[in-house]
Order: sequence, then structure tokens, then C-alpha cells
Amino acid sequence: MIAQTLKWVGGIDGFLELIDQRRLPGELVRLQCRDTERLYEAIKTLAVRGAPAIGVSAAYGLVLGMQKLTDTDDSERGLEVLAKSCEYLASSRPTAVNLFWALDRIRQSAERFVADKPNAKLQALREVILAEANAIYQEDVKMCRRIGENGQKFIKQGAGILTHCNAGALATAGQGTALSLMFEAHKKGRKFKVYVDETRPLLQGARLTAWELKQAGIDVVVICDNTAGWLMKQGHISAVITGADRIAANGDAANKIGTYSLSVLAREHGVPFYIAAPSSTFDPSIKSGDEIPIEQRAAEEVTTFGKTQIAPDSVKVYNPAFDVTDASNITAIITERGVIKNPNADSISKYLRS
Amino acid sequence: MIAQTLKWVGGIDGFLELIDQRRLPGELVRLQCRDTERLYEAIKTLAVRGAPAIGVSAAYGLVLGMQKLTDTDDSERGLEVLAKSCEYLASSRPTAVNLFWALDRIRQSAERFVADKPNAKLQALREVILAEANAIYQEDVKMCRRIGENGQKFIKQGAGILTHCNAGALATAGQGTALSLMFEAHKKGRKFKVYVDETRPLLQGARLTAWELKQAGIDVVVICDNTAGWLMKQGHISAVITGADRIAANGDAANKIGTYSLSVLAREHGVPFYIAAPSSTFDPSIKSGDEIPIEQRAAEEVTTFGKTQIAPDSVKVYNPAFDVTDASNITAIITERGVIKNPNADSISKYLRS
Repeated sequence: MIAQTLKWVGGIDGFLELIDQRRLPGELVRLQCRDTERLYEAIKTLAVRGAPAIGVSAAYGLVLGMQKLTDTDDSERGLEVLAKSCEYLASSRPTAVNLFWALDRIRQSAERFVADKPNAKLQALREVILAEANAIYQEDVKMCRRIGENGQKFIKQGAGILTHCNAGALATAGQGTALSLMFEAHKKGRKFKVYVDETRPLLQGARLTAWELKQAGIDVVVICDNTAGWLMKQGHISAVITGADRIAANGDAANKIGTYSLSVLAREHGVPFYIAAPSSTFDPSIKSGDEIPIEQRAAEEVTTFGKTQIAPDSVKVYNPAFDVTDASNITAIITERGVIKNPNADSISKYLRS
Repeated sequence: MIAQTLKWVGGIDGFLELIDQRRLPGELVRLQCRDTERLYEAIKTLAVRGAPAIGVSAAYGLVLGMQKLTDTDDSERGLEVLAKSCEYLASSRPTAVNLFWALDRIRQSAERFVADKPNAKLQALREVILAEANAIYQEDVKMCRRIGENGQKFIKQGAGILTHCNAGALATAGQGTALSLMFEAHKKGRKFKVYVDETRPLLQGARLTAWELKQAGIDVVVICDNTAGWLMKQGHISAVITGADRIAANGDAANKIGTYSLSVLAREHGVPFYIAAPSSTFDPSIKSGDEIPIEQRAAEEVTTFGKTQIAPDSVKVYNPAFDVTDASNITAIITERGVIKNPNADSISKYLRS
């Protein structure tokens, strides 16, 4: 069974149900968000994470925001409340591009609706907002499935796949990006094994990816990040598949720290290295990986575990959230629209224009 | 200040004082071992760890074992008690080669003494045992310092050094093997920075190496294991220096899991990769790395942290303690007797015969 990260329950007066990812893998708890404050908190505290999942959640957050407006029928008042909810939710994860994109899209469609039909009742506007949120949800589900389908030839019977971090159902409304390939192959009855890097410091691989794959009945083995090269050396890995956070015009791809090392190790051992990501991940305004800003995160993520201190007091830490994999190390990028082999500035520009 | 892992206090009726490494880096607590049972427990529970440190501790454990014998003056009775202590202590870490070596050495020297002087009193035998334990201790201190001195040309002013796991003072009676190079360079006033892999799953890098280097006033930065490649790519690393657990006749070297990947990443980035280890690490009976058995360790080391579960229930885990670095990836091996450049079967056999 593939995890369903989020689900809207009911009509315009409904609520959003989320898997609380902070409790995984220990417990599967579903969080009911019945107002924007609760959803804001869920995004901020990483109960829901992953760019697409955050975007879809925020879209539904705007549906929740409209529920407060009970003393009027005026759709202009509705737009004001919508604008405030947008601003509020945008501050929950200030660097999440999908979040802003989803909020803008809903707002624009609401404004268009009111501009077209100035006399429309608030209820009709609320229906438009819910419909747009549902559309974003459905598009995400479809995008995930298509990525999975497009990558099927890369998961062979008996394969040993290595993945890093979490690019799965928990990060999207659908069945994920990198993991979507595995879910599709599993549905087709193919047998393969997935090695999951635990992915320090936040352990998204051990906590989330391993849980998702196990739930779906896929054969999964957790390893420490430093074990991947040794597995390749012993011939256990036939492909590495990861997601990406941002892909430059020349194909250089930013993804969770550790991805770059995997790409070097894969090349050394003749193992193909694939990235699975939606077209929205390409940022043609960025020429190469050198221009991608790398978020530096708090030392405490590395030096403490829960309440346990695992490094000396006030020791210096280098904790970048991402690294950049050179396009030349990437065998192919798999998107919802197809496969870009040997990605480079030419092949990507051709793809983006097609 | 370089940590002093262990210290014998007093004469034949003295005791062994150990830094309790389970409490680091949170607290610096010294454990007083006044009988073999306490020492056995300290070795078994990793209060003391690192092959040379375990060997020296066990040697002193035999001095402790003799203290029980208060009702006789007979050195033959002494040899019986010594044999029993050897057997008992040998079972504390059944795969620790240095432990067996140290116990055997003390026993042989005690047996030689009694064979030479059958009428010697027990007290004289006890003095011989303490003297031999002290000799093992002193040799270890000297070995460490010589390794450090022999590797000085590899730590340049302004260098960025990367190390993995703990091959430091905490693992030896002296100032360590890999870290000895850094302590010596620091004594000489050279400025450099050491990046320390946290070294999952047991975090010896974050917990122990970072603590040691910081205590000594060396500039240290802790990183997650998956960050090393990205640091090299950015040009921050000028040398990788690690210890080794066992080196085959052809120069292939077993060391903590993750070392192999570092060697591949180093070569990719044109960074020299050094191993610092005593001559006793060479095992000429083993032709190549393929023959080195790799200890597989418990899944719980990876799936739980203290009492917190960080991977799904009963998920499969691949948790090898070591990997093997090909000799061709090793720029040089630094020992107490010199430097073996481009190690291979020829250069090592020449070194071992010299």
C-alpha cells in the first residue's frame, strides 16, 4: 500500500488530513487540520514536508482560511481574507518555492473569477478555490505516476537500487518522484531490492523512505550513508535513483547533501545515476550549478540527537542542506514528460521548448 | 592538551585509570579499575576502545589479577592465576587481535621468568608482569609519536585535513596514529583545519575525534559522512588521513566503513589519501583485501538511537563494521618506521623485511 500523505475530507466546509511525518516511523498518526493555524504549524514543524506536498497542503489551507468568513456573502470580502491567508501561509516555510507557487495560483484563479463575475456569492468563490486546490492535487498525482511510468526501463528484474533522502509519496500528493519508479515496477510484479541511505542529519531515508517502501511491500535495506560506495564495489547496486530540488539550465542538479558523492561513486563503479523530478524542477534562469545557492543549516542538527549531545560543546559544524551534482555525472533525468539522456544545456533547452 | 586515555597509578598494588569513552563528549570522567572484573566490564562496554588501548589495558588487567593472590608466596600458583586472568580478559572482546597479543606477551614473559628462576617469590613475578605491561605501554607511546613525526611532510601550513572514525589518543596509550600527525604538526605551530566525519553508526568521529582535537586546541569542524565529497569538490580538503585495522600483503587496507568511499572521492578530486598505522597492522598472511573477513554488526546500531527508533520496525539493515580500500587508492602508508609510498606487494614486502 502506497502512503497517502494528504487528503481533503468533505466539501468547502471540510478539512485536511495529513500523515504526521514527525511521528514516523514509530507511529502512523493522521493529523486533522481544521483551520489555517493548525496547517501553518504542521508545515512549520515538518509534520508535512517535501516541496509538492507542501504546495498542495497550502492550497487546501486557503480553503480552510475561507471557512472563517461566516458573517457575509460578499466575494470581495472573500478576496481580502484569501490575500491574508496567502500571506500568513507563505511565512510558514520561507524558502519553499512550491508553496508560493500554489498560493499564487489559487489567488489568481479566485481573482479572475471575481473579476469575471462581480456579483458572485462568497459560496461560489469558495467552490472555485476548492476546485483549484483539487486541480493542483490531481495534477501532482498524475505527474508522479507519469514519472514512474517513464522510468520503468531503468528498474530491471533483480535490480539493486540505491536511493537517498525521501523523494516518495510522503513528499508529494501522489506516489512520489524517485520512489514512483519503484512503486510502478512493484505494481508490475517486478522483483528488486532498494538500499536506502539513512541520510544524515535528519534521517529522511531511514525514517520515511524505508517506511514507505516497506508499507508498499517492497524489499528494502537501510544503510548508513558511508556504506553506499562499498555496496557498489561489491556489485550490489545496478542503479542509483534520487530526486532533485532544482536543476540548472545545463543539467547540474541540486539535491540533498550526499547526492554528489553518490554520483561520483556510481560513475567509478559503472553504475547509472538517474534523477527523477517534475519539469517544474528545471530553473532555466540558472545557467549552472555554481549559481545555485546552498542553504546552510543549524549545527544542532548534527551535534545533538533528541536531547543527547553527540559532539563536543560549541564545536564547529559544516551542515549544508544540499549539494550539486554535475550534469556529466547524471545518466538521465526522468520527468513526467519523458527522459532526458546525458543532460546538458542543449538537450535541456530542447526539452523545455518541446 | 592531548588526552591521556589510560594511566597506571602506583606499583604492583596500584590501579588502572581510564577515560570513560562512553561518557564523551558530554563529560570527562575517569574510571578507576581496581580489579579484573571492572576492567573486563570497561572493555566489553566500550568504556575503553581502539586496538592498542585495549591491548595496553588488558596488560595492566593482568597486574590487577595478581593482586587477588594474598595467601601465598608461590610463583607457580601465580602463573596459574595469570593463566586464568588471561583467559577471562581474552573473552571481553573476542575479535581484538591486540588484546590477545598483549595477554600472550605478558604470559610468556612471566613463564620465562619462572622457568629461569623457579625459586623466585610471587612478589618478584608480579614486578615482572608490571614491568612488561609498562613496556607495552611505553612502546605504544613511542610508536604513536614516531608515526606522527614520520607523517609531518603531509600536513602543510593552511591544510584542510579530513579524517574518519577515531584513530587518536583515545584509541591508544599514546597520541594515536592518524591524529598523531595532527598533534605533532600542531606542536610545531603549524596552522591547519581538520574536518571530522561523524562516522555512523557509532559516531566515533563526532563523539571522540572532535573532542580530542578540540582539547588539543586544533581547529576542528564536524561533518556528516555524506558531506566529505562536496567539501573535496569545493577544494577545502588537501589530504585525507585515516587509521587502519588490518593491511594485506598487497597494501589493501581494512578500516571503518566509509573509508573506501573516501579513497574513491579523494582520487576523483586529486586529493592524496594517507593511512597512518603501526607495522603490527600488516598481516602478510593475507594476500589481498578480498581475504579480509568483514564483521557484520547488529541492525540496532543503525535503527535506534538511545531509546529512539529511527527506522521502521524489523526493517533489514546492512551494517558492516569495515570496508577495504584498494592499495591503488592509497597514496602512502605512514608507520613508526617510515613511509611506504604507492603501497603494493613489492614495496610492502621490502618494508617488512627491512
